[in-house]
Amino acid sequence: MKKAHLLTIGDEILIGQIVNTNATWMSQKLNEIGLWVSEIKSIGDIDSEIKKAINQSLQDADFVFVTGGLGPTKDDITKKSLAEYFGVEMVWHQPTWERLEEYFLKLGRQLSDGHKAQCFMPSNATILTNKLGTAPGMWFSSNGKILVSMPGVPYEMQYLMEAEVLPKIAELVLDGQTVIHRSICTVGEGETVIADKISKIEDDLRSNLKIAYLPGMGNVRIRVTGTGKDEELLNFDVNKAGDEISEILGDIVYANEDISFEKALQNLFIEKNLTLGLAESCSGGYISHKLSIEPGASKFFMGSIISYDNIIKQNVLGVKSETLNQFGAVSSECVKEMVIGALKVLNVDIAISVSGIAGPDGGTEEKPVGTIWIAVGDKNRILTHKLTFGRDRLRNIQFSGMFALNMARRFVLKLI
Amino acid sequence: MKKAHLLTIGDEILIGQIVNTNATWMSQKLNEIGLWVSEIKSIGDIDSEIKKAINQSLQDADFVFVTGGLGPTKDDITKKSLAEYFGVEMVWHQPTWERLEEYFLKLGRQLSDGHKAQCFMPSNATILTNKLGTAPGMWFSSNGKILVSMPGVPYEMQYLMEAEVLPKIAELVLDGQTVIHRSICTVGEGETVIADKISKIEDDLRSNLKIAYLPGMGNVRIRVTGTGKDEELLNFDVNKAGDEISEILGDIVYANEDISFEKALQNLFIEKNLTLGLAESCSGGYISHKLSIEPGASKFFMGSIISYDNIIKQNVLGVKSETLNQFGAVSSECVKEMVIGALKVLNVDIAISVSGIAGPDGGTEEKPVGTIWIAVGDKNRILTHKLTFGRDRLRNIQFSGMFALNMARRFVLKLI
Repeated sequence: MKKAHLLTIGDEILIGQIVNTNATWMSQKLNEIGLWVSEIKSIGDIDSEIKKAINQSLQDADFVFVTGGLGPTKDDITKKSLAEYFGVEMVWHQPTWERLEEYFLKLGRQLSDGHKAQCFMPSNATILTNKLGTAPGMWFSSNGKILVSMPGVPYEMQYLMEAEVLPKIAELVLDGQTVIHRSICTVGEGETVIADKISKIEDDLRSNLKIAYLPGMGNVRIRVTGTGKDEELLNFDVNKAGDEISEILGDIVYANEDISFEKALQNLFIEKNLTLGLAESCSGGYISHKLSIEPGASKFFMGSIISYDNIIKQNVLGVKSETLNQFGAVSSECVKEMVIGALKVLNVDIAISVSGIAGPDGGTEEKPVGTIWIAVGDKNRILTHKLTFGRDRLRNIQFSGMFALNMARRFVLKLI
Repeated sequence: MKKAHLLTIGDEILIGQIVNTNATWMSQKLNEIGLWVSEIKSIGDIDSEIKKAINQSLQDADFVFVTGGLGPTKDDITKKSLAEYFGVEMVWHQPTWERLEEYFLKLGRQLSDGHKAQCFMPSNATILTNKLGTAPGMWFSSNGKILVSMPGVPYEMQYLMEAEVLPKIAELVLDGQTVIHRSICTVGEGETVIADKISKIEDDLRSNLKIAYLPGMGNVRIRVTGTGKDEELLNFDVNKAGDEISEILGDIVYANEDISFEKALQNLFIEKNLTLGLAESCSGGYISHKLSIEPGASKFFMGSIISYDNIIKQNVLGVKSETLNQFGAVSSECVKEMVIGALKVLNVDIAISVSGIAGPDGGTEEKPVGTIWIAVGDKNRILTHKLTFGRDRLRNIQFSGMFALNMARRFVLKLI
């Protein structure tokens, strides 16, 4: 398997100002086309370190992807270091100048000297047009190795990778072969349990097929990848393995394609022509937020009552004061009445409610921190469930939210 | 300034399965005690690569922090590679064995052979007791350099760093000196504008003082750091610079200590004895979620009506159908009526409302994607504001949420 190194240049990562999400995104994309990322490195804007790192990576890897240090300010030195490393001159690149002129004309802004400097390029670079920013990407070929330099701004890097870099890299890596992926997305079981269930399929796979586990919050995505020359055969093999995995895993599979759980839930509700509403207490809007960041959410998600205070549980949702007095807000009885209230007030087919002690404080002996009640129901039946988590507030909110949404999925599918 | 390298061992980061948040956390902590992280590297569980990376880092840096590869499974080889690199034997560490026995007895589980292997340690290592997991940390001293090896599980690494590693490292780095920090947290202005405003203070700083800018979503944290032997003088200098910065920046400063914006807002509302409620449409619960992840939120945040659907705007918040017909849901008139409704239904002192077109689709010529109206008010006055963002749904949600919360802060402080 051919090897790639990722090299990030700039201080932001080194001082802990930003998380290196670029590396995560690039690793995923390169992995998908069959390239193994064997090293990820972050260094500062220091000429000697840049040259040393480039030299090491061009020795150890087949492909080197450099991000950062291409901006118009004086601490951005990547391009100059690259030219010096390759022993070439910087030459004026007229098309970049024309692109910048046009771009700044539109914005009604003046080009600075820094921007002029952005039009000088190492003479051995193939220029990659960056339609989303000022700094172009650069493609270098040296002794059979490839080095690509791109801006560190995530959406600019992603644009260049998808439009210019990945197709070319895929061609070089695959060398006439094809890569086919098939995703099976699951919710509610851990990676170990899943791996155990499908170990026989994994053991029996042809050598050109492999399985990857990509765990997220409460969900695990399983990806079958096949590489080979015969596309038809490959398609058959990958899908056969995918179908077998999906069948063995049964109802924990929420999608047989690579989509988020919230999108799959949206599809399910739209398909069944059902609307959803929420009554959130301790989850405080988290579930509503998760549902609404998916485009298209308004087709099934009508709204929520965030009844953080008990008065709102009573006044808006109609939870009885006797229920609160006798059982407390964190109880099966309360979440049941919250569902009844949400169904009515929000005028929806299905409602979810959550009430608990998210922590880190506020628990009692009977109801310790991490005790969370969930209910899901429609006008005919309401189911409740008690979760017992730890003291981590954010984790309690996130995991109970995922659990509640999966409970709604299972309710609609009549699995519960 | 002494240099540190961070080295992460394991495939999870290389395949893009997880983001390297450990590196971010460690960089921040090391930076705070005056240590410069000059390189962050991730490699796989491959013996030769581990040894090569350790060797390079022990040459280039004064301190090397290694995480990962200490688990009980057979792909975890970091400890063996370290022992071989240092040319030492593995020796049985009885206290670790006793700790594991006790730990597993409590859980009612059996110790595996893998766990027995976790009790063998390189003979030159000082063992760091890991109270939160099975794998101990290790401290190596070699030719005047320090190498620390820790598990990759974030909370185990963080525990070991805070309880065992950072205090010792600080002592070595500071060598009798003290480091003092002072944070000034701002909201509503960019890093460049802020840097410009305080450039004179920055230029005039004593050489043992420096300023760092830590930008977040819609906010910028400014940190003044001083290093020196005379703690009293240092305290005076750091706080003098901090006070000057805070004064120049004026009302964009939301806190003179290192706390989140949401926590500062919580403090402000509690101090003024005011309650807050929300009426969210396009932000879909994001603002409620941000407020409620801060412990203590229930002291001022009463709840929200997430009126994703217009029917809920009408039925629950009492927005008039004529208003929706004449001006639409994305209008000054609508968000104003949403505030009036929220004040009443949620029975709060202050209410915020948000309604807009989050995107990526759904805009019109008159109201393009990214048009978002915000209102803040109490029973006496209601202010509205129109934002115009781009097509990125999540960014629109997040930035409008931050803007709305800052508008509430400014409203309460009578700055608007």
